[in-house]
Amino acid sequence: MTRFDTVIRGGTVATAADVFRADIGILDGRIAAIAERLGDAERSIDATGRLVLPGGIDAHVHIDQVQAPGLASAGARMADGFLSGTRSAAFGGTTCTLSFAVQHRGTSLRAAVEDYHRRAAGNAYLDYSFHLVLADPRPEVLGQELPALVARGHRSLKVYMTYEAMRLSDTQILDVLEVAREQRAVVLVHAENHEIIGWLADRLERRGQTAPRFHATSRPLPVEREATHRALTLGEIAGVPLVIVHVSGAEPLEEIRRARARGVTVIAETCPQYLTLTEQDLDQPDMLGAKVMCSPPPRDTASQAACWRGIEDGTFELFNSDHAPYRFDGEGKLRAGPAAPFRKVSNGVPGLATRLPILFSEGVVTGRISLPRFVALTAANNAAIYGLDRKGRIAIGADADIAIWDPEHRVTITNDLLHHDVDYTPWEGMSVTGWPERVLSRGEMIVEHGELRAKPGRGRFIEQSVSSAFGPRSWT
Amino acid sequence: MTRFDTVIRGGTVATAADVFRADIGILDGRIAAIAERLGDAERSIDATGRLVLPGGIDAHVHIDQVQAPGLASAGARMADGFLSGTRSAAFGGTTCTLSFAVQHRGTSLRAAVEDYHRRAAGNAYLDYSFHLVLADPRPEVLGQELPALVARGHRSLKVYMTYEAMRLSDTQILDVLEVAREQRAVVLVHAENHEIIGWLADRLERRGQTAPRFHATSRPLPVEREATHRALTLGEIAGVPLVIVHVSGAEPLEEIRRARARGVTVIAETCPQYLTLTEQDLDQPDMLGAKVMCSPPPRDTASQAACWRGIEDGTFELFNSDHAPYRFDGEGKLRAGPAAPFRKVSNGVPGLATRLPILFSEGVVTGRISLPRFVALTAANNAAIYGLDRKGRIAIGADADIAIWDPEHRVTITNDLLHHDVDYTPWEGMSVTGWPERVLSRGEMIVEHGELRAKPGRGRFIEQSVSSAFGPRSWT
Amino acid sequence: MTRFDTVIRGGTVATAADVFRADIGILDGRIAAIAERLGDAERSIDATGRLVLPGGIDAHVHIDQVQAPGLASAGARMADGFLSGTRSAAFGGTTCTLSFAVQHRGTSLRAAVEDYHRRAAGNAYLDYSFHLVLADPRPEVLGQELPALVARGHRSLKVYMTYEAMRLSDTQILDVLEVAREQRAVVLVHAENHEIIGWLADRLERRGQTAPRFHATSRPLPVEREATHRALTLGEIAGVPLVIVHVSGAEPLEEIRRARARGVTVIAETCPQYLTLTEQDLDQPDMLGAKVMCSPPPRDTASQAACWRGIEDGTFELFNSDHAPYRFDGEGKLRAGPAAPFRKVSNGVPGLATRLPILFSEGVVTGRISLPRFVALTAANNAAIYGLDRKGRIAIGADADIAIWDPEHRVTITNDLLHHDVDYTPWEGMSVTGWPERVLSRGEMIVEHGELRAKPGRGRFIEQSVSSAFGPRSWT
Amino acid sequence: MTRFDTVIRGGTVATAADVFRADIGILDGRIAAIAERLGDAERSIDATGRLVLPGGIDAHVHIDQVQAPGLASAGARMADGFLSGTRSAAFGGTTCTLSFAVQHRGTSLRAAVEDYHRRAAGNAYLDYSFHLVLADPRPEVLGQELPALVARGHRSLKVYMTYEAMRLSDTQILDVLEVAREQRAVVLVHAENHEIIGWLADRLERRGQTAPRFHATSRPLPVEREATHRALTLGEIAGVPLVIVHVSGAEPLEEIRRARARGVTVIAETCPQYLTLTEQDLDQPDMLGAKVMCSPPPRDTASQAACWRGIEDGTFELFNSDHAPYRFDGEGKLRAGPAAPFRKVSNGVPGLATRLPILFSEGVVTGRISLPRFVALTAANNAAIYGLDRKGRIAIGADADIAIWDPEHRVTITNDLLHHDVDYTPWEGMSVTGWPERVLSRGEMIVEHGELRAKPGRGRFIEQSVSSAFGPRSWT
Repeated sequence: MTRFDTVIRGGTVATAADVFRADIGILDGRIAAIAERLGDAERSIDATGRLVLPGGIDAHVHIDQVQAPGLASAGARMADGFLSGTRSAAFGGTTCTLSFAVQHRGTSLRAAVEDYHRRAAGNAYLDYSFHLVLADPRPEVLGQELPALVARGHRSLKVYMTYEAMRLSDTQILDVLEVAREQRAVVLVHAENHEIIGWLADRLERRGQTAPRFHATSRPLPVEREATHRALTLGEIAGVPLVIVHVSGAEPLEEIRRARARGVTVIAETCPQYLTLTEQDLDQPDMLGAKVMCSPPPRDTASQAACWRGIEDGTFELFNSDHAPYRFDGEGKLRAGPAAPFRKVSNGVPGLATRLPILFSEGVVTGRISLPRFVALTAANNAAIYGLDRKGRIAIGADADIAIWDPEHRVTITNDLLHHDVDYTPWEGMSVTGWPERVLSRGEMIVEHGELRAKPGRGRFIEQSVSSAFGPRSWT
Repeated sequence: MTRFDTVIRGGTVATAADVFRADIGILDGRIAAIAERLGDAERSIDATGRLVLPGGIDAHVHIDQVQAPGLASAGARMADGFLSGTRSAAFGGTTCTLSFAVQHRGTSLRAAVEDYHRRAAGNAYLDYSFHLVLADPRPEVLGQELPALVARGHRSLKVYMTYEAMRLSDTQILDVLEVAREQRAVVLVHAENHEIIGWLADRLERRGQTAPRFHATSRPLPVEREATHRALTLGEIAGVPLVIVHVSGAEPLEEIRRARARGVTVIAETCPQYLTLTEQDLDQPDMLGAKVMCSPPPRDTASQAACWRGIEDGTFELFNSDHAPYRFDGEGKLRAGPAAPFRKVSNGVPGLATRLPILFSEGVVTGRISLPRFVALTAANNAAIYGLDRKGRIAIGADADIAIWDPEHRVTITNDLLHHDVDYTPWEGMSVTGWPERVLSRGEMIVEHGELRAKPGRGRFIEQSVSSAFGPRSWT
Repeated sequence: MTRFDTVIRGGTVATAADVFRADIGILDGRIAAIAERLGDAERSIDATGRLVLPGGIDAHVHIDQVQAPGLASAGARMADGFLSGTRSAAFGGTTCTLSFAVQHRGTSLRAAVEDYHRRAAGNAYLDYSFHLVLADPRPEVLGQELPALVARGHRSLKVYMTYEAMRLSDTQILDVLEVAREQRAVVLVHAENHEIIGWLADRLERRGQTAPRFHATSRPLPVEREATHRALTLGEIAGVPLVIVHVSGAEPLEEIRRARARGVTVIAETCPQYLTLTEQDLDQPDMLGAKVMCSPPPRDTASQAACWRGIEDGTFELFNSDHAPYRFDGEGKLRAGPAAPFRKVSNGVPGLATRLPILFSEGVVTGRISLPRFVALTAANNAAIYGLDRKGRIAIGADADIAIWDPEHRVTITNDLLHHDVDYTPWEGMSVTGWPERVLSRGEMIVEHGELRAKPGRGRFIEQSVSSAFGPRSWT
Repeated sequence: MTRFDTVIRGGTVATAADVFRADIGILDGRIAAIAERLGDAERSIDATGRLVLPGGIDAHVHIDQVQAPGLASAGARMADGFLSGTRSAAFGGTTCTLSFAVQHRGTSLRAAVEDYHRRAAGNAYLDYSFHLVLADPRPEVLGQELPALVARGHRSLKVYMTYEAMRLSDTQILDVLEVAREQRAVVLVHAENHEIIGWLADRLERRGQTAPRFHATSRPLPVEREATHRALTLGEIAGVPLVIVHVSGAEPLEEIRRARARGVTVIAETCPQYLTLTEQDLDQPDMLGAKVMCSPPPRDTASQAACWRGIEDGTFELFNSDHAPYRFDGEGKLRAGPAAPFRKVSNGVPGLATRLPILFSEGVVTGRISLPRFVALTAANNAAIYGLDRKGRIAIGADADIAIWDPEHRVTITNDLLHHDVDYTPWEGMSVTGWPERVLSRGEMIVEHGELRAKPGRGRFIEQSVSSAFGPRSWT
């Protein structure tokens, strides 16, 4: 009988389908056995009274990203590179990240991807992959670079419908979708109507309404509903599945449900900010509202309820952080000045470390969702949709990326618990129940009782297989 | 290290979440280990090139049922008792049934349940439980009998909105729902508007339109849509989850989606007949159409497509047979005479053995659904919704109820393959790909290569726990 | 050239289509000419600066009604007979009423209708017709009495889905609808689910929650939504148009819109109480809330907004009062006692005289609706739907039933302005702009500057023609 | 008593509200009296057995239009100028046209409008006004030219979402809508997604699929649904009513209904081609399909049914021709060559003369719609929405623009009956019942029994008042 490298003993194991008590045997970084009781091992970890979950996959993360010229955030330093970003992720129970490799206009997509590979290599604590952001889908990019990148395991693309330096026209999106269909790559869409936002922001600006709270005024729900419907129409025309990321309320959700009812394949994602924050949080003195400025903006309590319902009833398959690590001090959020108008404030909130504890506490502990659904939302579905075959699962042959949670540990969130290089968290002071106590990546202990145990650079790039959005995988 | 009673070696295992190659170790009838490779065992089963799936749970089955006086089927003999019913189930890859324990008006629910326990004990090849059909929810039934039965592990109830001898008024349904909420029992609803059916049937009868095809004319989709909306309103008022069984088309499905959007908890079921048959099949010479008369009736190809979409997009969580074993000859379907008008024909189709092969072939092999979704629809979700904690799962501690499928075996369905005591199948001659080769119940081989290996009466009654429809289970 | 009996000079005339300045020439009680300037007449009425509108038709009025045994209102005296009822109507600008001729169970419909004819004759100031309430649609009623009544010009029927003594089963409603289709009679439906109401009221009663405000708790919006959907399904099955009366909020309205989208002909009505009152008005000390108890109950401000939107966008074609004249003192509302539980309080609000001023002030003066839409809602559509060919219109050949409004007259509503025999109005103290100054019926001045000018008994029964709901009228 | 210039005697008069028998007295070109019987007149017209209707307003007409460079139709000669266009209109019972005054990019809107005034003056047989097409809404156009034009009675604008040379971006549309709100001008939108069409057409072209029928393939219903939803979102953001022109099927109609349900003011128009033609008509040999190429294209019979339902239930308020007079021979449809690919074929169908007979025959004679609804759809609503106060009505003070129809006259449509300068009609050979026998404009006989009676150039420009879409008109 095999002698395992590691056995996690006596925990309550959860998969996306089941919950049961079992020992987990790890060999060569993989899960080799799940059994009532396993024999000796090099190392035993006592998980009695603990939950043994797949480490989270955070599939919507901005790390060490070079912002395109012209963006509000252009020149703003992202506080988190792969070192601090994956470190923070690990402390929050996440063991794999999908960040963005961003093409700028007029540049090579392949070169951009290579650049991001360089940025990650030698730094990442965790395994990682990239979504490729297409800002310039000209023929040679789509015809040559992209197929070559797909062949190397890059199978998720992202397009923006807003941000002047990033957004694609409907035609360009269709061009991307056509190649995505041929290459079987899945496409993420940031769905907000760029022109309406700009038009509203112009008018707010003229009236001197430039405080952070007007950020929300400039991009109301119909802006997101419109772009969501349009994106889904483009997907319908091209005959290709889409992921609509960071859905913030009932109106875009309704578009998603309607599209499904007419036979369109669409995957929907929401984020912690849409479950826990509102537009009111943007309305604080001293520019503090800038801390929670993100796009789409948090809405109202009815929108929160709609997002929770979508979490509960399965409309949302994905739950990610949209981590955007701009510091509040220095060259981050307020790079354009301490009283910058909202259009000049860098957008986004940090959330790599807090994503799982917030959903666990507000979702699982409250009884809104089951443990299997938690696993599905935070790990297994990301693995399936983004083709990470060995990740996000507790199953024979899967990588031993495992988070051992103390489900009763009460924690008051403070920024120093998060181990990112951002100087704040939107959830400062929030009390949560449940926290990851130990985190393993490929069988190696990364974080243990609040201590980092691993070395940077151990993380590896993961090649993606074809997304489950293209249909069930063959079992052979 | 444990020596297992049985090890299933080298198969491709599917759960409701994952697919992986593994050995399965069985000890004392339970799954004790899932591992890359397991050691010696009393018995080894070679599953190379095979799928190792949880045995199906068929949670909508009529077996050895005593029909209430006044029904068309009153006095009609159900061809399948627990012996032939569970035998047929096993041949089709099913390892657990939920059939109905039916109260008649003016009688004791408790006595009825005890009667069905007697009918099952000593006969069943497979483990079983019962849904309790309430035809007379008078105060002592709801106030005393039902709580006592719940305490003994009966936690699913069924109410009918049609059939004169069975149907409850809205008030009675609310009374049942109130007790169901208090007792945390889940309620199945047969949703068709009784009075509209009767009114239409009267008019058809007056015009001499009594052939089997007029059965469908007498219960058009609005009849089902109306009752579904009404049932969901009653559930909304009572604040209790419902299962809408045998949904047949787009209109009732839309009611289910709308109810969810307003926050109502509703589980939806469909059946093979709504995916594969149409109203046209009722229109055959020599009363042959009577063979496929069921309620609701099969509709049209658009309805089939709508049901398939619901299967694919997760609207349907349950897929069961609604097995109703009336023979075409003798005292079954046509008990009222060889040319009985449709109102006198016993309703229902046999389907215990064909349910899984049809969904496997038409769903999995065609690429419409994944293996995990197949497992969820046919086994795991029934287990969760109906509180069968050890069933429907390949997980540590679960009962070793396992079906080993040859996914490439092509079979032409003929009635003699089905091992029920009904003299026909609606799917005679249908070609399917994939068939269960071996079936184990609690680790015991029941069916092997088309041979029955077990003795009747080995099946046990399974107590139900609280349905997952009442919220996530605690993991402790 | 004709010499007219009366010429109304210089007013602003509104029809359901147009607004223009014109003289109106009346001859033999009919409108004989509409022209820029008409010549001499027996009598001239100066309408300079005034609006000349068709007199209102109030097609939902309870007058001198004998309540069925078993109703909460059984034995309660209706304060208004045809004398005071039509008097009050006239003071409010209405010139024609459609009240109910109510069959009780076990009695003859024909006899009931004859009784109501007697009650009206000799009393009514205004022309009138009846809707026939069918509480007992047994074969001889539907097969013999009803066709005979239709032949005498009774072409509108009403069915109740609630009230124990009145309600019909789905089968009975279908029976009525079938005859209605054959006879081309239009059917009004009171759509609330009787059994849910009773069930909820039982539970409220057990908890001692019997104050008037619990009346609303006992019949929440889903109760109305359910019955509306069911009624529309029955209409769909029978293939006959329906009028859904007194719609109170968004949910039943959505059912109406959905039914239209699937091709069902349905006419919708709302009432002043649903535009101006809310459930809060039921929550007053000293049983005062009983004054505004009606069924369905007033809802909330969102429901008011939904009803206004339905008024504005044309979803509602009819606007009537549902006048129910129970006094607050004596043997009316509180006949069962000064602190009667809500189930024993007679239901309904008085509203014959206030209907038009409220809609004029809140609808026309505020700019929500145009004058033609006001005319359509309050007069012309009632005439078309209920087959009153010569009523509700300012057109050549129409009866000269005309209300001359001072559109700028500000009035504070007090009960003594209303000239009914009810001792209160829900709108006491409400300030409105616009009031009918003169009211003519068949060319005869009925009310002038707050003085009654006519004699009781001059009103005549109006035979109904086939409803426009059965399709466009032939113009020949 | 007045002596009228003309009296139309004994006809059946229809307004948008009523149908009645009356004489119509005309004085100084206006309707001065409507009466049972009018006295002597200079001229009497016997209308016994005839319908006396308001002359139609065709508010969607392309006449003598100069196509922008770059359009498929650039350089294509429009066969109808104001002479033949208004002549053809008159023969079809129409007495007023709203055609387009089209700005080209880089040019002055004011100059364009003046040019179209010149084109009309001296030629038109009928009164006319213009919608101003904005192809270049730069600041001086919106800030100076447009307000000046509004001040001269131009109060309807049109924007295109497709056609390269015409289409506006979302930002530009918002700019137009903002000015429209301030100036209270109503905005018509051609709603198709330009980029999707171009993308699909490119792909069809590459595959050599350039026959006329691929025109429909290149602009499927989702293209129209998308743009309709987007346009309505822009209207929602800007807070201004929109007219969605030429709606072709259920999907865009659903967007319109949804927008109304959320409180957006939107007026919808359809055209004869969407009620009577289908995509199949594009699939004919010898390029004959090009004759019925228009945008959006005709769809299928389900779409026709959806449009008919919208006509019947009031969703459509407007019914216009979208007359586009390209000849099939010569420099029209096929200017780019006798086998031009579909992208090079000039778009549109001629329909000025056939619009009313088709709707009368298919709508009124069949019993789908009433005469008042016919009047509303074809005349009165156009007058209200487009601010033509004296047009489209038979009411005191209105212009005596009247069509006298023989409702029983059966006519087989042939192109020579239509008196336009186009060499074909899509409805050649169609049999209709009902035809306008005499047509009067401002009291002057224009067409009588198929003979033209008037002189060109008698038509006058009509200043528009504020659209009823901005709310009810004051009656004072």
